[in-house]
Amino acid sequence: MIRPATSADVPVIAGLIRALAEYEKLSDSVVLDEAKLAAHLFGPRPYAECLIAEADGQAVGFALFFHNYSTFLGKPGIYLEDLFVLPECRGAGHGKALLRAIGQLAVERDCGRIEWSVLDWNTPAIGFYDSLGAKPVGGWTVYRMTGESIGKLAE
Amino acid sequence: MIRPATSADVPVIAGLIRALAEYEKLSDSVVLDEAKLAAHLFGPRPYAECLIAEADGQAVGFALFFHNYSTFLGKPGIYLEDLFVLPECRGAGHGKALLRAIGQLAVERDCGRIEWSVLDWNTPAIGFYDSLGAKPVGGWTVYRMTGESIGKLAE
Repeated sequence: MIRPATSADVPVIAGLIRALAEYEKLSDSVVLDEAKLAAHLFGPRPYAECLIAEADGQAVGFALFFHNYSTFLGKPGIYLEDLFVLPECRGAGHGKALLRAIGQLAVERDCGRIEWSVLDWNTPAIGFYDSLGAKPVGGWTVYRMTGESIGKLAE
Repeated sequence: MIRPATSADVPVIAGLIRALAEYEKLSDSVVLDEAKLAAHLFGPRPYAECLIAEADGQAVGFALFFHNYSTFLGKPGIYLEDLFVLPECRGAGHGKALLRAIGQLAVERDCGRIEWSVLDWNTPAIGFYDSLGAKPVGGWTVYRMTGESIGKLAE
Protein backbone atom coordinates (compact mmCIF):
# COMPACT_ATOMS: atom_id res chain seq x y z
CA MET A 1 0.00 0.00 0.00
CA ILE A 2 1.33 3.41 -1.04
CA ARG A 3 0.04 6.55 0.68
CA PRO A 4 1.11 10.21 0.97
CA ALA A 5 3.06 10.91 4.16
CA THR A 6 1.56 13.18 6.85
CA SER A 7 3.27 15.17 9.59
CA ALA A 8 2.67 12.23 11.95
CA ASP A 9 5.13 10.23 9.81
CA VAL A 10 8.12 12.53 10.42
CA PRO A 11 9.89 10.21 12.93
CA VAL A 12 9.33 7.25 10.57
CA ILE A 13 10.64 9.23 7.57
CA ALA A 14 13.69 10.35 9.56
CA GLY A 15 14.36 6.70 10.47
CA LEU A 16 14.08 5.65 6.82
CA ILE A 17 16.42 8.49 5.72
CA ARG A 18 18.99 7.28 8.28
CA ALA A 19 18.59 3.66 7.10
CA LEU A 20 19.08 4.82 3.49
CA ALA A 21 22.25 6.73 4.46
CA GLU A 22 23.57 3.64 6.21
CA TYR A 23 22.88 1.53 3.10
CA GLU A 24 24.67 4.14 0.96
CA LYS A 25 27.64 4.25 3.42
CA LEU A 26 26.94 7.98 3.85
CA SER A 27 25.76 8.11 7.48
CA ASP A 28 28.47 10.69 8.23
CA SER A 29 26.73 13.09 5.81
CA VAL A 30 23.41 13.04 7.70
CA VAL A 31 22.76 16.15 9.80
CA LEU A 32 18.98 15.79 9.72
CA ASP A 33 16.84 17.56 12.34
CA GLU A 34 13.29 16.20 12.76
CA ALA A 35 11.68 19.56 13.58
CA LYS A 36 13.21 21.10 10.46
CA LEU A 37 12.23 18.08 8.36
CA ALA A 38 8.63 18.52 9.55
CA ALA A 39 8.70 22.21 8.59
CA HIS A 40 10.32 21.50 5.22
CA LEU A 41 7.81 18.80 4.27
CA PHE A 42 4.60 20.03 5.92
CA GLY A 43 5.13 23.75 6.64
CA PRO A 44 3.75 26.75 4.73
CA ARG A 45 6.44 26.40 2.01
CA PRO A 46 6.91 22.65 1.42
CA TYR A 47 10.20 21.83 -0.32
CA ALA A 48 9.40 18.20 -1.07
CA GLU A 49 6.63 15.58 -1.03
CA CYS A 50 6.81 12.10 0.42
CA LEU A 51 5.09 8.76 -0.23
CA ILE A 52 5.18 5.86 2.25
CA ALA A 53 5.05 2.15 1.36
CA GLU A 54 3.27 0.15 4.05
CA ALA A 55 2.97 -3.57 4.68
CA ASP A 56 0.94 -4.96 7.61
CA GLY A 57 0.54 -1.43 8.96
CA GLN A 58 4.32 -0.84 9.09
CA ALA A 59 6.28 1.63 6.94
CA VAL A 60 8.72 -0.43 4.86
CA GLY A 61 9.91 2.22 2.41
CA PHE A 62 9.52 5.75 1.12
CA ALA A 63 9.93 7.97 -1.90
CA LEU A 64 10.77 11.64 -1.41
CA PHE A 65 10.59 13.97 -4.40
CA PHE A 66 10.16 17.54 -5.59
CA HIS A 67 9.48 19.23 -8.91
CA ASN A 68 12.27 20.43 -11.13
CA TYR A 69 11.72 22.35 -14.38
CA SER A 70 13.10 22.03 -17.90
CA THR A 71 13.08 25.25 -19.89
CA PHE A 72 13.87 23.32 -23.09
CA LEU A 73 10.83 21.04 -22.64
CA GLY A 74 8.81 23.89 -21.14
CA LYS A 75 7.53 21.39 -18.57
CA PRO A 76 8.01 20.52 -14.93
CA GLY A 77 9.60 17.20 -14.05
CA ILE A 78 9.84 15.06 -10.94
CA TYR A 79 13.19 14.68 -9.21
CA LEU A 80 13.27 11.66 -6.96
CA GLU A 81 15.65 12.56 -4.14
CA ASP A 82 15.22 9.31 -2.20
CA LEU A 83 13.74 5.93 -3.01
CA PHE A 84 14.33 3.31 -0.35
CA VAL A 85 12.90 0.02 0.88
CA LEU A 86 14.21 -1.53 4.10
CA PRO A 87 16.70 -4.28 3.12
CA GLU A 88 14.68 -6.95 5.02
CA CYS A 89 11.52 -6.02 3.07
CA ARG A 90 12.91 -6.12 -0.47
CA GLY A 91 11.78 -8.35 -3.30
CA ALA A 92 8.08 -7.87 -2.52
CA GLY A 93 7.47 -5.11 -5.09
CA HIS A 94 7.46 -2.14 -2.72
CA GLY A 95 10.10 -0.22 -4.72
CA LYS A 96 8.21 -0.79 -7.96
CA ALA A 97 4.94 0.26 -6.31
CA LEU A 98 6.53 3.50 -5.05
CA LEU A 99 7.93 4.22 -8.51
CA ARG A 100 4.57 3.42 -10.15
CA ALA A 101 2.90 5.97 -7.85
CA ILE A 102 5.55 8.54 -8.85
CA GLY A 103 4.88 7.69 -12.52
CA GLN A 104 1.14 8.24 -12.01
CA LEU A 105 1.80 11.64 -10.40
CA ALA A 106 4.09 12.53 -13.32
CA VAL A 107 1.30 11.73 -15.79
CA GLU A 108 -1.37 13.60 -13.75
CA ARG A 109 0.86 16.68 -13.43
CA ASP A 110 2.01 16.71 -17.10
CA CYS A 111 5.68 16.20 -16.20
CA GLY A 112 8.11 15.55 -19.04
CA ARG A 113 10.68 13.65 -17.02
CA ILE A 114 11.38 11.67 -13.89
CA GLU A 115 15.02 11.95 -12.80
CA TRP A 116 17.15 10.73 -9.92
CA SER A 117 20.79 9.99 -9.09
CA VAL A 118 22.32 6.62 -8.35
CA LEU A 119 25.64 5.79 -6.73
CA ASP A 120 27.90 4.29 -9.39
CA TRP A 121 28.62 1.18 -7.25
CA ASN A 122 24.95 0.40 -6.62
CA THR A 123 24.57 -2.24 -9.35
CA PRO A 124 21.33 -3.78 -7.97
CA ALA A 125 19.64 -0.37 -8.21
CA ILE A 126 21.11 0.31 -11.66
CA GLY A 127 19.77 -3.04 -12.93
CA PHE A 128 16.33 -2.20 -11.57
CA TYR A 129 16.36 1.25 -13.24
CA ASP A 130 17.53 -0.20 -16.56
CA SER A 131 14.63 -2.69 -16.43
CA LEU A 132 12.19 0.26 -16.25
CA GLY A 133 13.58 1.87 -19.41
CA ALA A 134 15.44 4.63 -17.51
CA LYS A 135 18.61 5.92 -19.20
CA PRO A 136 21.75 7.47 -17.73
CA VAL A 137 22.08 11.15 -18.71
CA GLY A 138 25.46 11.42 -20.44
CA GLY A 139 27.56 14.42 -21.41
CA TRP A 140 26.74 16.59 -18.39
CA THR A 141 28.48 16.99 -15.03
CA VAL A 142 26.75 18.26 -11.89
CA TYR A 143 28.62 21.07 -10.12
CA ARG A 144 28.03 22.03 -6.49
CA MET A 145 28.82 24.93 -4.18
CA THR A 146 28.46 24.53 -0.42
CA GLY A 147 28.70 26.69 2.73
CA GLU A 148 31.97 28.59 2.51
CA SER A 149 32.03 29.09 -1.25
CA ILE A 150 28.36 30.23 -1.19
CA GLY A 151 29.24 32.74 1.54
CA LYS A 152 32.13 34.13 -0.53
CA LEU A 153 29.96 34.32 -3.66
CA ALA A 154 27.24 36.24 -1.78
CA GLU A 155 29.64 38.90 -0.41
CA MET B 1 21.58 45.41 -12.72
CA ILE B 2 19.93 42.20 -11.55
CA ARG B 3 16.16 42.11 -10.97
CA PRO B 4 13.48 39.41 -10.53
CA ALA B 5 11.61 38.66 -13.75
CA THR B 6 7.92 39.53 -14.06
CA SER B 7 5.25 38.11 -16.37
CA ALA B 8 5.99 40.98 -18.81
CA ASP B 9 9.44 39.40 -19.35
CA VAL B 10 8.14 36.09 -20.73
CA PRO B 11 8.93 36.86 -24.42
CA VAL B 12 12.42 38.05 -23.39
CA ILE B 13 13.00 34.93 -21.25
CA ALA B 14 11.81 32.68 -24.09
CA GLY B 15 14.27 34.45 -26.43
CA LEU B 16 17.12 33.95 -23.95
CA ILE B 17 16.21 30.25 -23.51
CA ARG B 18 16.36 29.82 -27.30
CA ALA B 19 19.71 31.65 -27.46
CA LEU B 20 21.04 29.38 -24.70
CA ALA B 21 19.88 26.28 -26.57
CA GLU B 22 21.60 27.53 -29.71
CA TYR B 23 24.84 28.11 -27.77
CA GLU B 24 24.55 24.58 -26.31
CA LYS B 25 23.85 23.12 -29.79
CA LEU B 26 20.56 21.79 -28.40
CA SER B 27 18.02 23.88 -30.34
CA ASP B 28 16.36 20.67 -31.56
CA SER B 29 15.43 19.89 -27.93
CA VAL B 30 13.47 23.12 -27.41
CA VAL B 31 9.69 22.68 -27.50
CA LEU B 32 8.99 25.74 -25.38
CA ASP B 33 5.52 27.36 -25.43
CA GLU B 34 5.36 30.95 -24.16
CA ALA B 35 1.86 30.69 -22.66
CA LYS B 36 2.90 27.59 -20.71
CA LEU B 37 6.18 29.23 -19.65
CA ALA B 38 4.17 32.18 -18.28
CA ALA B 39 1.91 29.81 -16.33
CA HIS B 40 4.85 27.76 -15.03
CA LEU B 41 6.79 30.80 -13.81
CA PHE B 42 4.02 33.18 -12.74
CA GLY B 43 0.89 31.02 -12.28
CA PRO B 44 -0.67 29.80 -9.02
CA ARG B 45 1.90 26.98 -8.70
CA PRO B 46 5.25 28.43 -9.85
CA TYR B 47 7.78 25.74 -10.78
CA ALA B 48 10.80 28.04 -11.03
CA GLU B 49 12.02 31.58 -10.38
CA CYS B 50 13.91 33.82 -12.77
CA LEU B 51 16.37 36.72 -12.46
CA ILE B 52 17.18 39.07 -15.35
CA ALA B 53 20.51 40.85 -15.92
CA GLU B 54 19.99 44.24 -17.57
CA ALA B 55 22.40 46.69 -19.15
CA ASP B 56 21.23 50.02 -20.62
CA GLY B 57 17.62 48.89 -20.14
CA GLN B 58 18.13 45.72 -22.24
CA ALA B 59 18.01 42.14 -20.92
CA VAL B 60 21.45 40.64 -21.53
CA GLY B 61 21.18 37.46 -19.49
CA PHE B 62 19.11 35.41 -17.08
CA ALA B 63 19.26 32.84 -14.31
CA LEU B 64 16.39 30.39 -13.89
CA PHE B 65 16.29 28.23 -10.75
CA PHE B 66 14.13 26.22 -8.38
CA HIS B 67 14.57 24.67 -4.97
CA ASN B 68 15.71 21.12 -4.53
CA TYR B 69 15.97 19.37 -1.15
CA SER B 70 18.63 17.25 0.52
CA THR B 71 17.30 14.84 3.13
CA PHE B 72 20.86 14.16 4.35
CA LEU B 73 21.52 17.86 4.99
CA GLY B 74 17.91 18.41 6.06
CA LYS B 75 17.99 21.62 4.04
CA PRO B 76 16.69 23.01 0.76
CA GLY B 77 19.15 23.87 -1.96
CA ILE B 78 19.05 25.93 -5.13
CA TYR B 79 19.24 24.18 -8.47
CA LEU B 80 20.27 26.53 -11.24
CA GLU B 81 18.61 25.20 -14.37
CA ASP B 82 19.85 27.96 -16.70
CA LEU B 83 22.52 30.62 -16.42
CA PHE B 84 23.14 32.51 -19.64
CA VAL B 85 24.57 35.80 -20.88
CA LEU B 86 24.24 36.75 -24.54
CA PRO B 87 27.60 35.98 -26.24
CA GLU B 88 27.99 39.61 -27.40
CA CYS B 89 27.56 40.87 -23.79
CA ARG B 90 30.08 38.62 -22.06
CA GLY B 91 33.13 39.68 -20.08
CA ALA B 92 31.30 42.54 -18.34
CA GLY B 93 30.51 40.63 -15.11
CA HIS B 94 26.83 39.87 -15.81
CA GLY B 95 27.24 36.13 -15.21
CA LYS B 96 29.06 36.73 -11.94
CA ALA B 97 26.39 39.27 -10.89
CA LEU B 98 23.61 36.75 -11.59
CA LEU B 99 25.45 34.08 -9.61
CA ARG B 100 26.09 36.50 -6.74
CA ALA B 101 22.35 37.22 -6.57
CA ILE B 102 21.69 33.46 -6.46
CA GLY B 103 24.29 33.15 -3.68
CA GLN B 104 22.54 35.89 -1.69
CA LEU B 105 19.18 34.13 -2.07
CA ALA B 106 20.81 30.87 -0.94
CA VAL B 107 22.10 32.57 2.23
CA GLU B 108 18.76 34.33 2.94
CA ARG B 109 16.81 31.09 2.49
CA ASP B 110 19.23 28.90 4.52
CA CYS B 111 20.11 26.68 1.55
CA GLY B 112 22.91 24.15 2.00
CA ARG B 113 23.91 23.92 -1.65
CA ILE B 114 23.78 25.53 -5.05
CA GLU B 115 23.93 22.97 -7.86
CA TRP B 116 23.77 23.01 -11.65
CA SER B 117 24.85 20.90 -14.62
CA VAL B 118 27.42 21.80 -17.23
CA LEU B 119 28.02 20.26 -20.65
CA ASP B 120 31.33 18.40 -20.53
CA TRP B 121 32.68 20.26 -23.62
CA ASN B 122 31.91 23.72 -22.21
CA THR B 123 35.42 24.48 -20.90
CA PRO B 124 34.93 28.29 -20.59
CA ALA B 125 31.98 27.67 -18.24
CA ILE B 126 33.88 24.96 -16.32
CA GLY B 127 36.83 27.34 -15.78
CA PHE B 128 34.44 30.00 -14.48
CA TYR B 129 32.78 27.56 -12.07
CA ASP B 130 36.14 26.27 -10.81
CA SER B 131 37.19 29.88 -10.10
CA LEU B 132 34.15 30.22 -7.78
CA GLY B 133 35.13 27.18 -5.71
CA ALA B 134 32.42 24.94 -7.21
CA LYS B 135 33.25 21.23 -7.34
CA PRO B 136 32.07 18.50 -9.71
CA VAL B 137 29.90 15.92 -7.90
CA GLY B 138 31.60 12.58 -8.51
CA GLY B 139 30.45 9.01 -7.95
CA TRP B 140 26.80 9.54 -8.92
CA THR B 141 25.01 9.17 -12.26
CA VAL B 142 21.75 10.92 -13.13
CA TYR B 143 19.07 8.60 -14.54
CA ARG B 144 16.07 9.80 -16.51
CA MET B 145 12.71 8.43 -17.66
CA THR B 146 10.74 10.25 -20.35
CA GLY B 147 7.31 10.02 -22.06
CA GLU B 148 6.87 6.42 -23.13
CA SER B 149 8.70 4.78 -20.23
CA ILE B 150 6.80 7.00 -17.74
CA GLY B 151 3.52 5.93 -19.38
CA LYS B 152 4.43 2.25 -19.03
CA LEU B 153 5.51 2.71 -15.42
CA ALA B 154 2.22 4.41 -14.55
CA GLU B 155 0.03 1.63 -16.03
